[in-house]
Amino acid sequence: MGQIAFGGDYNPEQWPREVWAEDMRLMRGASVSMVSVGIFSWALVEPRDGEYDFGWFDEVMDNLSRNGIAASLATMTASPPPWLTRKYPEILPVLADGTRMWPGGRQAYCPSSPAFRAHATRLVRLIAERYRDHPALALWHIGNEYGCDTPACYCDLSAEAFRTWLRARYTTVDALNEAWSTKFWSQRYDDFAEVLPPRTVPAFNNPSQQLDFARFSSDEILGCLLAEKAVIRELTPNVPITTNFAGYSHALDLRRWAEELDVVSFDSYPEPFDPRAHVEAGLTYDVYRGARGGQPWLLMEQAPSAVNWRERNAAKEPGQMRLWSWQAVAQGADAIMYFQWRQSRGGAEKFHSAMVPHAGPDTDQHRDIVALGAELASVPEIVGSRPDNDVAVVLDWASWRALELDAHPSSDVQQLDALLAHYAPLFTANIACDVVSPADDLSSYRLVVVPNLYLVSATDAERLTDYVRGGGHLLMSFFSGIVDESDRVHLGGYPAPFRDVLGLRVDEFRPLDAGQVLPVELVGQTGGATLWSERITLEGAEVQGRFTDGSPALTRSEFGDGVAWYLATRPDPELLQTLSEHVAARAGVEPVLTGLPKGVQAARRGDFLFLLNHNPRPSTVDLDRPMTDLLSPGSAPAEHVELVARGVAVLR
Amino acid sequence: MGQIAFGGDYNPEQWPREVWAEDMRLMRGASVSMVSVGIFSWALVEPRDGEYDFGWFDEVMDNLSRNGIAASLATMTASPPPWLTRKYPEILPVLADGTRMWPGGRQAYCPSSPAFRAHATRLVRLIAERYRDHPALALWHIGNEYGCDTPACYCDLSAEAFRTWLRARYTTVDALNEAWSTKFWSQRYDDFAEVLPPRTVPAFNNPSQQLDFARFSSDEILGCLLAEKAVIRELTPNVPITTNFAGYSHALDLRRWAEELDVVSFDSYPEPFDPRAHVEAGLTYDVYRGARGGQPWLLMEQAPSAVNWRERNAAKEPGQMRLWSWQAVAQGADAIMYFQWRQSRGGAEKFHSAMVPHAGPDTDQHRDIVALGAELASVPEIVGSRPDNDVAVVLDWASWRALELDAHPSSDVQQLDALLAHYAPLFTANIACDVVSPADDLSSYRLVVVPNLYLVSATDAERLTDYVRGGGHLLMSFFSGIVDESDRVHLGGYPAPFRDVLGLRVDEFRPLDAGQVLPVELVGQTGGATLWSERITLEGAEVQGRFTDGSPALTRSEFGDGVAWYLATRPDPELLQTLSEHVAARAGVEPVLTGLPKGVQAARRGDFLFLLNHNPRPSTVDLDRPMTDLLSPGSAPAEHVELVARGVAVLR
Amino acid sequence: MGQIAFGGDYNPEQWPREVWAEDMRLMRGASVSMVSVGIFSWALVEPRDGEYDFGWFDEVMDNLSRNGIAASLATMTASPPPWLTRKYPEILPVLADGTRMWPGGRQAYCPSSPAFRAHATRLVRLIAERYRDHPALALWHIGNEYGCDTPACYCDLSAEAFRTWLRARYTTVDALNEAWSTKFWSQRYDDFAEVLPPRTVPAFNNPSQQLDFARFSSDEILGCLLAEKAVIRELTPNVPITTNFAGYSHALDLRRWAEELDVVSFDSYPEPFDPRAHVEAGLTYDVYRGARGGQPWLLMEQAPSAVNWRERNAAKEPGQMRLWSWQAVAQGADAIMYFQWRQSRGGAEKFHSAMVPHAGPDTDQHRDIVALGAELASVPEIVGSRPDNDVAVVLDWASWRALELDAHPSSDVQQLDALLAHYAPLFTANIACDVVSPADDLSSYRLVVVPNLYLVSATDAERLTDYVRGGGHLLMSFFSGIVDESDRVHLGGYPAPFRDVLGLRVDEFRPLDAGQVLPVELVGQTGGATLWSERITLEGAEVQGRFTDGSPALTRSEFGDGVAWYLATRPDPELLQTLSEHVAARAGVEPVLTGLPKGVQAARRGDFLFLLNHNPRPSTVDLDRPMTDLLSPGSAPAEHVELVARGVAVLR
Repeated sequence: MGQIAFGGDYNPEQWPREVWAEDMRLMRGASVSMVSVGIFSWALVEPRDGEYDFGWFDEVMDNLSRNGIAASLATMTASPPPWLTRKYPEILPVLADGTRMWPGGRQAYCPSSPAFRAHATRLVRLIAERYRDHPALALWHIGNEYGCDTPACYCDLSAEAFRTWLRARYTTVDALNEAWSTKFWSQRYDDFAEVLPPRTVPAFNNPSQQLDFARFSSDEILGCLLAEKAVIRELTPNVPITTNFAGYSHALDLRRWAEELDVVSFDSYPEPFDPRAHVEAGLTYDVYRGARGGQPWLLMEQAPSAVNWRERNAAKEPGQMRLWSWQAVAQGADAIMYFQWRQSRGGAEKFHSAMVPHAGPDTDQHRDIVALGAELASVPEIVGSRPDNDVAVVLDWASWRALELDAHPSSDVQQLDALLAHYAPLFTANIACDVVSPADDLSSYRLVVVPNLYLVSATDAERLTDYVRGGGHLLMSFFSGIVDESDRVHLGGYPAPFRDVLGLRVDEFRPLDAGQVLPVELVGQTGGATLWSERITLEGAEVQGRFTDGSPALTRSEFGDGVAWYLATRPDPELLQTLSEHVAARAGVEPVLTGLPKGVQAARRGDFLFLLNHNPRPSTVDLDRPMTDLLSPGSAPAEHVELVARGVAVLR
Repeated sequence: MGQIAFGGDYNPEQWPREVWAEDMRLMRGASVSMVSVGIFSWALVEPRDGEYDFGWFDEVMDNLSRNGIAASLATMTASPPPWLTRKYPEILPVLADGTRMWPGGRQAYCPSSPAFRAHATRLVRLIAERYRDHPALALWHIGNEYGCDTPACYCDLSAEAFRTWLRARYTTVDALNEAWSTKFWSQRYDDFAEVLPPRTVPAFNNPSQQLDFARFSSDEILGCLLAEKAVIRELTPNVPITTNFAGYSHALDLRRWAEELDVVSFDSYPEPFDPRAHVEAGLTYDVYRGARGGQPWLLMEQAPSAVNWRERNAAKEPGQMRLWSWQAVAQGADAIMYFQWRQSRGGAEKFHSAMVPHAGPDTDQHRDIVALGAELASVPEIVGSRPDNDVAVVLDWASWRALELDAHPSSDVQQLDALLAHYAPLFTANIACDVVSPADDLSSYRLVVVPNLYLVSATDAERLTDYVRGGGHLLMSFFSGIVDESDRVHLGGYPAPFRDVLGLRVDEFRPLDAGQVLPVELVGQTGGATLWSERITLEGAEVQGRFTDGSPALTRSEFGDGVAWYLATRPDPELLQTLSEHVAARAGVEPVLTGLPKGVQAARRGDFLFLLNHNPRPSTVDLDRPMTDLLSPGSAPAEHVELVARGVAVLR
Repeated sequence: MGQIAFGGDYNPEQWPREVWAEDMRLMRGASVSMVSVGIFSWALVEPRDGEYDFGWFDEVMDNLSRNGIAASLATMTASPPPWLTRKYPEILPVLADGTRMWPGGRQAYCPSSPAFRAHATRLVRLIAERYRDHPALALWHIGNEYGCDTPACYCDLSAEAFRTWLRARYTTVDALNEAWSTKFWSQRYDDFAEVLPPRTVPAFNNPSQQLDFARFSSDEILGCLLAEKAVIRELTPNVPITTNFAGYSHALDLRRWAEELDVVSFDSYPEPFDPRAHVEAGLTYDVYRGARGGQPWLLMEQAPSAVNWRERNAAKEPGQMRLWSWQAVAQGADAIMYFQWRQSRGGAEKFHSAMVPHAGPDTDQHRDIVALGAELASVPEIVGSRPDNDVAVVLDWASWRALELDAHPSSDVQQLDALLAHYAPLFTANIACDVVSPADDLSSYRLVVVPNLYLVSATDAERLTDYVRGGGHLLMSFFSGIVDESDRVHLGGYPAPFRDVLGLRVDEFRPLDAGQVLPVELVGQTGGATLWSERITLEGAEVQGRFTDGSPALTRSEFGDGVAWYLATRPDPELLQTLSEHVAARAGVEPVLTGLPKGVQAARRGDFLFLLNHNPRPSTVDLDRPMTDLLSPGSAPAEHVELVARGVAVLR
């Protein structure tokens, strides 16, 4: 890809032929370089079992290549056609409470269904054979937003697949019993055949069973992708493969999935009503850039303006679509694409904004698209560049899933809240960071932040300990290091695997009531503590912050050549800002740029410095040396950058 | 009917014979002229399949005729008896998520069930044959509150009936695919046999499928009524037919249903806790009067005081039952009836107030009934008279259903809210109006108000356009004219079919967040805008109101000989009051009476002027000429009327 | 039992053998005298159908007896093992909406399942035979928290059992029809075979059917206990029997159940976040003490600190565990036990605090346990002593269940709210009371409080009337005496069976809106009235309080030799405090101790006076004579007691 790919989902099947010609003309005018095609075309290309109609799609592909537009070619299996689920009703997925899901929406299939998989791969083989040598084919787009609408299935087929998965994981049922602590509540299994998915139960489900079922469900959906990938690799070994993730959730283990892809892509829909939406979006971008070790990623879908699936769907403000697109590029995107090219006339997403709205191209919305397409096309040199960050934030899928199981000290402790709480002050301070797995090599970072790592293996705990021993700085929050991979408590006093490095023991969790705020003082500043407190016995750590009863709220432990901080509560944002900057400064971490006005984001990719004014008013930025704004082609290098409201500069 | 019918549901089967004699005596004392009988008697008159026991019911009918009381004779099919659903369990209805509904409540039947329909019509034939010549028989009361508890069924029988209905509507599956936009999300049907009701799905259901299923469900329940009607018409061609609707909802298309009835009747239960309940009630009365083109209607059920099915069931204040009864008459009722005659001792409605309460007739509640009965009987000349209004408010069932489907710009935009928001200022200003269908002849109105008409056919849009062209005044609110009968967007810029008459194009919907209020100025007055805003391009219209950013919030377009106003938001009630009066005045509309104290409603029916004091304190009304209060028999004509708190005057 | 039993649930199967030895050592150190064993051991002792492994359990029992610790021996049937429900899937219970409950939690069995009962009693026989002569066996602990997770089952087996139960209750289907008022809504049954549980229905369920199903469900679960009891009594006629209730709810009729036990035990988990938790706990203790006529009871489970099953699980404050344990003793407990001995490493309750926490015995939590164990062991003379109270508060299970059925005047009127509202002022005033059934002999009480007795039989109404006639004082609140045992209204004006004794008739219920507060004046003090008001006609009673419109809110009626008060609303807590003390004083009731500081509870058991300081600060109590604090062994008798924050004194 020689430039930042620009385009969107293209669904010409929804329109008569005369519109197709206009589409091509408009795409050229909008600098569109790539489109995703065929995502929901199964029912059209295979109208009956084993009968195919590819002619119209040939035409679409030919139109694209004739117009120099690359195809991100979908495998067309995102939703089974009605004839398929009528013929094999067992394909229809089932919820934990036994509710069968029906056709009429999308993604109504059980990922473990042999009938679904057989028909899907048969279709994919035909598609790959037909278009393997088509000049438009640039990227395989397997499925679509896997697990978004059907993150798990609890049917009998899924139960059988779950048992197969468990046999592979545990070999013996005794090992499963041990991992699942089934001596509790008379749950001992005498045979794998007795095991079921965690369907609706009286009281609480077995948490280890739930955790394994979450792992299984992610793996099982991945199995659908892998079945298609095998066909594709066989027939087109050199065409890269992606799938577009729907944001990120604990349903799919992104790190595991990313291993199977050549490039990561995903769909990003920040909430325009939220004045801090760009911070949460920035976190998502860093999560995805981290998924394959810093490799640039593709923004496969965003909305030109409003979406349609929220309760109230805000339109974007003027300039906001451009700003947020550039933010994605600044944080690693090599593609800016949309759902969708032309706004649907009917169906469930007809009120989702599009590159060509209902009123047609003679609209501000389309003109904004055209302008951005041209702008992105003007800076091909950005493609492939990467940041080089000193701070890592840890996120682990198994821990996330386990953290949010039932019957914990406080159900208010949620992974994404913790992650965002600790990410936001770094973002605000323009301290760029990577989101990493605890299994990654951390040695290159000056500071590693662990917002929460409830579940940790002995190996990962040792890696984090070694990181500090070797001179790293660690900031870890409460309720980390509590359980092992099977959700069994690490005995010996919380957090057993981190007691040495942190220099303390947590004697009792004291979660706070809903809305309760305790006064707290951290590194000399006072503020409010929320969600959690605990009773700590010091074992070498020094106190750096206290609750009003004098008990420790923040500790600092020198360990080996490094330093480990431990935070026993969730401070309010202002206080956590102070703390984060304090800890970062002591770790020798510097922001991307100092002295930035509030609300202006600075980001680096290779040689490029991006300035993003998230304020609805102009801002002036002082640079430390003269730089040139690539988006103002004729301009001279300057040490001051004037950013309009929601303005962007790409400097070099 | 020579007088305003007065009475209620009469269920003597719940009481021993000795009570029946007292019932007759008390009914005579209360001027009761009509009662509904047999509504839930199926299980008693047919205790076993094909075995009948009508003896006790003969006695009831004979008692009525002997006492000069007319029977609104139910067809007794409102709830199937337990033996029937035990024998044919497929009669039991099923929810969208597959949950089977069971006996033990009421209305537990699938309207498409052949077994249910066969048994119901067999019973109706027996009833009609038996009582066709009975002197008490005055009105057929088919079913009871159709669709109230079971508005739709999703079972396999319903699925088959839905397919039959669709085959009749579309002939070919291609036509269905086109109407339902099934190229979206891989939903193309290859055969009608693949189509299902919109059961629970992952993601959003197909909106066109949902819309057609709503039409089908209304038609299918109507099919139950029609099957019974066919028997009745055959045997008693001259006895009028009604069914009592439960308020009105989008479940049953009132306009379609009303065509099949001789007179419309319904059940009205305003919320006494709501100080504006009479406004919402007034709207309901106008909706029902409009159902058969202004024909008087029957208030088939109201509560003497509290109901029992709300979370908290307020008793009515002293005078409120009388006031609200007269309001119904003022707005077109020719019957004032209650649920129910004698308060049940057991069962689910025993705490619903009744004409004879648990404590018996020696109670204020019963005395109020007796007084009102006598009062109503004293003014037989009101019967049959009609109003003659200059303002119409448009309500369309298909549009209502479509508006409230999922995945719209804002789920806060709801039909009844819009309708009430625009109706209330007219009511408050004592501007009487009719509620009409967009398919009605509008030419006689000075002003037509369209609170929302999201879905509109080309024909209906043209009719509204012609109305303005011919000199009419139109006030249309946002998100109207968006889709066609199949919920497909009218292309070419919103609202395509109304762009000419309104003189504008809506470029983007900008719904507001929950609780968000924007400042807005309309016709010179400032206030708050809620729910919605949008970006408008003027195409001939002039701006009559603006948001603070200067963009249009209200426009006025002269078109042909008329004027079309367009309102791009929901103003707060005070501002909408100003706007409504402004627009009405410019259309030459006058209130029923000017200079009325706040909270006093004036309404006309033929020669009669009704004054209704909804205030909990006295009010004085000045008339423009001396009139006589029919409710104060001996009084002389006067130009001033003194109304007590919650008082009523009927003037001529 | 020669001392206050001390211990907890002991689940050694969750731990390796080496931990068992430490358990014994630590139990001895903590003065543990009794533990509950085997509660969830079914899947371990019977790993396959009919194959048994009791060896490990023999060892547990032997360890206990060797260490002088009594076994509260569970029957091990609290949760069926996975192999059992796999073999007999009909054991799995079903919700009212048809949702099947699955294994993976606990208590997943239908109480009517023959397969479950057969396997359960087969196991119990083996256990009883094996351990009948074991020296550790002190108490049979049947099941565990019956009905807590599965309070009812709606499956077809349950339906059949329900019909059997109904045949026994009613003999003829006509009698059932009469009791259930089935002439309403066409519900007449022609045969018992047509009757079903109250599954999900359109509209409201038949309330009498719901009420009988609640009775049936309690009886059916009790049937499980009785089946096990029969085996146990046969084999060990002299070993006492208990089952531990989970708090109390309307699911299980405690009075009926208590008849079948030798001693009542239950699990108490006050909410530490609630500053008034001790009041609600005190009510629970009085409810359970009343279950067997004042007999001391066993606190079978409490938490050493936090539980794990709330949304947010507060830790107990320092001293709070000791204080609340002594409160239980003060109100009748002869055992203080915990869930559980050693905190689980895995499973759904691993974050529930325990006597030995995850960090082991070298913790404050364990040290607090050790200290309390020693303290309780030092006062064996308390065992068996009882209070002697002048006030009774009435609670009836049938009335409770009926009160909370649907379609009532106000769903805000709930039994436990009413009970607590009337109990709290007595507790606050240190007026000790018993919680009794309306079927109990009330003649020894000076005052009987009836917070709500919606359902009352003619017999019970007569008993209450006789109580007043004989000189008793009665305080009855609104919506009492409304229906009979079948939820049919007592005709003749509310509350018909109490009109004579109260000297009034209630003409109309006027429930208040959510959050609505009416000004009211009672016995000379003004305050707020909530929830309810009504219109009363006096028939001999005198008015002692009024709403602002002058209508009666409180009446007093002299009847026979006694006095009956009637309260027509729910006053705010302060006003109800005044009223309660006023009524109690006029009845000649005296507090346990006068002049106590606020927040200090005084309670008597036999010769012992307990002082419990619920304040988080010290308090000083003046006695009327010198007494000795048994918890301060060497101290001299004194007339002043200094209580530390959350401190306790046991005086004699």
